[in-house]
Amino acid sequence: MNFASFEALRAACQDLPSGSQGAADAVVRRQNTLTKPQGSLGRLESLVAWLARWQGREVPALERVKVIVFAGSHGVTAQGVSAFPPEVTAQMVANFSAGGAAINQLAKAAGAELDVVALEVERPTADFTLAPAMEEGEFLAAIGRGYNAVEAGTDLLALGEMGIGNTTAAAAIASALFGGVDQWVGRGTGVDDAGLGRKTAAIEVAMKLHGEILHDPLKAAAAVGGRELAAILGATLAARHKGIPVLLDGFVCTAAVAPLGRLHPHGLDHTRAAHVSAEAGHRGLLTAMDLKPLFDLGMRLGEASGACLAVNILRSALACHTGMASFADAGVSEKG
Amino acid sequence: MNFASFEALRAACQDLPSGSQGAADAVVRRQNTLTKPQGSLGRLESLVAWLARWQGREVPALERVKVIVFAGSHGVTAQGVSAFPPEVTAQMVANFSAGGAAINQLAKAAGAELDVVALEVERPTADFTLAPAMEEGEFLAAIGRGYNAVEAGTDLLALGEMGIGNTTAAAAIASALFGGVDQWVGRGTGVDDAGLGRKTAAIEVAMKLHGEILHDPLKAAAAVGGRELAAILGATLAARHKGIPVLLDGFVCTAAVAPLGRLHPHGLDHTRAAHVSAEAGHRGLLTAMDLKPLFDLGMRLGEASGACLAVNILRSALACHTGMASFADAGVSEKG
Repeated sequence: MNFASFEALRAACQDLPSGSQGAADAVVRRQNTLTKPQGSLGRLESLVAWLARWQGREVPALERVKVIVFAGSHGVTAQGVSAFPPEVTAQMVANFSAGGAAINQLAKAAGAELDVVALEVERPTADFTLAPAMEEGEFLAAIGRGYNAVEAGTDLLALGEMGIGNTTAAAAIASALFGGVDQWVGRGTGVDDAGLGRKTAAIEVAMKLHGEILHDPLKAAAAVGGRELAAILGATLAARHKGIPVLLDGFVCTAAVAPLGRLHPHGLDHTRAAHVSAEAGHRGLLTAMDLKPLFDLGMRLGEASGACLAVNILRSALACHTGMASFADAGVSEKG
Repeated sequence: MNFASFEALRAACQDLPSGSQGAADAVVRRQNTLTKPQGSLGRLESLVAWLARWQGREVPALERVKVIVFAGSHGVTAQGVSAFPPEVTAQMVANFSAGGAAINQLAKAAGAELDVVALEVERPTADFTLAPAMEEGEFLAAIGRGYNAVEAGTDLLALGEMGIGNTTAAAAIASALFGGVDQWVGRGTGVDDAGLGRKTAAIEVAMKLHGEILHDPLKAAAAVGGRELAAILGATLAARHKGIPVLLDGFVCTAAVAPLGRLHPHGLDHTRAAHVSAEAGHRGLLTAMDLKPLFDLGMRLGEASGACLAVNILRSALACHTGMASFADAGVSEKG
């Protein structure tokens, strides 16, 4: 899929299937016959119904679980917004390939296949304090890379990112879409107070420079986002079109998909926020987007690490759903 | 191990090893060399240090993970405190044996071995609104059953329970140890408002009836607890003596181990609360016991279901610790 213009992409973001209510209902009916007090598995029960709805089948599967990490480089690192040098992005892509990063271990522990998609890592986006990060064509190319990275027949997709400087881009998108600046600015990989000040200043400059187009979620994502964020947006859109539920990772990943939530009131219904990260703005962003995370373990690594950790929660939920006996089959008395 | 008296058990609860600080320190040193910003895996990092401390080795293992569900019957069900009839306890023990319960599926998904220990399920404890639930000998026998169910060489123990009426016993223990009544009384398997009132009334009666011994955590656990709660206490004590970290499940399990926390200021350091359940009193009890749960998924099933769900989080944490490359090995630049 290639999107020819902002308008073509906008149209695709507004043409979204609504999943199978029938499949979700069938899950709830079965849950209520199983040997447990009704509802006592909490979100494990609703997560299975969610999988069923978006996979479009009454008995969901988790055979083909895919983790995709998108990587991109950011011109705004010239403003001194990160604790790590920008070459770490490419070095970490190499580390992913060699199997040495956290996400390699987490994907294996989740029984998931890991794809890493590096998006012109050697060619940073423009410094968005001086110019749009990406022109329309560059942005749409990144969206297309994300869209086409998603294979039909995948049962579940966990999305994440790597990109030194990208919490600044994510905070800028949040500022553009939800207003304010300070509440979205956090320490990322561990920037000091001076760096935090530079990060805030860079976003304030960008909000003025690009002010005229910030009302448009897609144009804002192009002007102050990054290639890996655009690819996550494209992948999330593809997952919706292809019947694949999505686990979102942390702050950057959440900001990346925010435009889809803005363009369609149910645009993110096929996603679940895996966790709330320790990055300062994440909790507020989840609240603003009406996403309720599954857990809070103080993680702030990115790389889809939180999303991947949630995969085994879904596997456990599904195992209960498919493997438990009913009250009738087990000869257990029901509620008096 | 058999404990001959309350005093012998009390002495054992005060003679506790403190784990290996050296092993925990070694974990932290290694974590800080791995290819991620320091601390960015959040609680996944501290959980590995916790495993190392209590297993007493620098590289912890999760090869032999055991789930034990203790089951017991409660005379206080005569007071109409539960939504389900008391025979469900034995029926669910049969369901565990047949592999049809939630915990069977969850244990399999966690790669854990499941043991079910039924404690005289056919012979309920006394109704504690009329008499002590257990006499000293009965209580110590249940403690011993729990203690002896724990095998040395186990890498991790997840504990849970089954027992119609046992949220009433748990609430009574919480009342005895921490004061108040109403804040510990919840709906358990789903009791209605009238049942909730009977539950509160039963605990109020018990607090008066057994008032003279409630200052003693062990005597309180005998008077208003239950056999499966005593066994959980015994198992948790055994795990401490045998170098095994413990994952606690929900409200009943937490109340069951509260006496150990009362008898020794570090008595529960080798435990982690897996989750906060939807049972009304659990969050407050965790706070009172200074336990910080790993997740909140609205579960309220018991059976070690929450504890078991946490096992894969620990597996993922350990996989990162043992499998990740260091900055030096991967050629990744460190923080500038």
